[in-house]
Amino acid sequence: MKISVVKNILEANQRIAEENRRRFSQNRLLVINFMSSPGAGKTSLLEKTILALKDDFRIGVIEGDIQSTYDAERIGQTGAPVVQINTGGACHLDSNMVEEALQNLDLARLDLLFIENVGNLVCPADFNLGEDLKAVILSVSEGDDKPLKYPLMFHVSNLLLINKIDLLPYCECNPDLIEERARKVNPNLTLFRVSCRTGDGLDSWTGWLRGKLRERK
Amino acid sequence: MKISVVKNILEANQRIAEENRRRFSQNRLLVINFMSSPGAGKTSLLEKTILALKDDFRIGVIEGDIQSTYDAERIGQTGAPVVQINTGGACHLDSNMVEEALQNLDLARLDLLFIENVGNLVCPADFNLGEDLKAVILSVSEGDDKPLKYPLMFHVSNLLLINKIDLLPYCECNPDLIEERARKVNPNLTLFRVSCRTGDGLDSWTGWLRGKLRERK
Repeated sequence: MKISVVKNILEANQRIAEENRRRFSQNRLLVINFMSSPGAGKTSLLEKTILALKDDFRIGVIEGDIQSTYDAERIGQTGAPVVQINTGGACHLDSNMVEEALQNLDLARLDLLFIENVGNLVCPADFNLGEDLKAVILSVSEGDDKPLKYPLMFHVSNLLLINKIDLLPYCECNPDLIEERARKVNPNLTLFRVSCRTGDGLDSWTGWLRGKLRERK
Repeated sequence: MKISVVKNILEANQRIAEENRRRFSQNRLLVINFMSSPGAGKTSLLEKTILALKDDFRIGVIEGDIQSTYDAERIGQTGAPVVQINTGGACHLDSNMVEEALQNLDLARLDLLFIENVGNLVCPADFNLGEDLKAVILSVSEGDDKPLKYPLMFHVSNLLLINKIDLLPYCECNPDLIEERARKVNPNLTLFRVSCRTGDGLDSWTGWLRGKLRERK
């Protein structure tokens, strides 16, 4: 009798992530995985980003939540095609869930795909989905010590979006310290400071994204 | 050949949680498990709570973090005995980690023990530690939809502390909606609205806690 054991769930995840990556690449699609704590503003940032780019690019969204379709409904208002994944308790998306969701999206008709992960600053960092870029969104109201306490998330990410900068006058948070600490974990991070409420910094972020999308055309 | 498999990691956790509970009970100790998203203000709330109660009660703290000792150092400033657990990547505390930490605390000399969990609104909800009360701390900057999107955390908790109410004028968040939605998930929740920055609501919270501690004496 031979007993097979999947020794490393991350290896299985990585295999499917590579398949997803191949499909994205075949379709010349830019795919960004949005990760953050609950309530850091991922969905609001997606709404603003889609509205800024939708006249020039075709954008789709995969929404990851433990349960409910609230975020997908919000994104649907922008007119972008959206697929909701309900993880049913799981605290992160994995590549297999994303592969299933792709059955409901016409990749050939998209330029940009956002994957909004489950709100969690820990576990999603471990699971590649086949994305081109990982973005961590951090709200200033969470404090400036987060890169010290949750370093893996900042280490694996390509982008750091410091959100809710309109709250800086009311929070004990120094955004320079966030940047300094995040860069110590990951010197290659691309950084933006934004406020979805006032619109500050959004042009800089969406302008950068336009550049990335034009590179692929 | 017999192969034993631990079918349910939660069953193993529950067994040790019951042992912890017995030890807490033998020492007439009130134990509260603080859970929240990263940056909701668990450590600040602990600091304020300890300072308000430390002249009348003997308080200890177990700090849970993936790595680092920043929070333990902050709590140590209050004079309370504190033990740091580093989970080394794990996104929640389990009862076994708490049992190990207890070796470094003299339970007979404490009235109240706080366990600050890893910042995560998902996974810690699954793991009983042997505590008397579970408290979820939610910052208003996280938005009022969190009980809808992360219902398990609100379902398992006894207390909901809505924190950072000083930010309400600057956030799109209705605290009445938080309460209504949380109560729908869990009608037995005891609720407090607090601000560690202005001190609003802290008397009500610490007054309630004093009552609980006096019941045990």
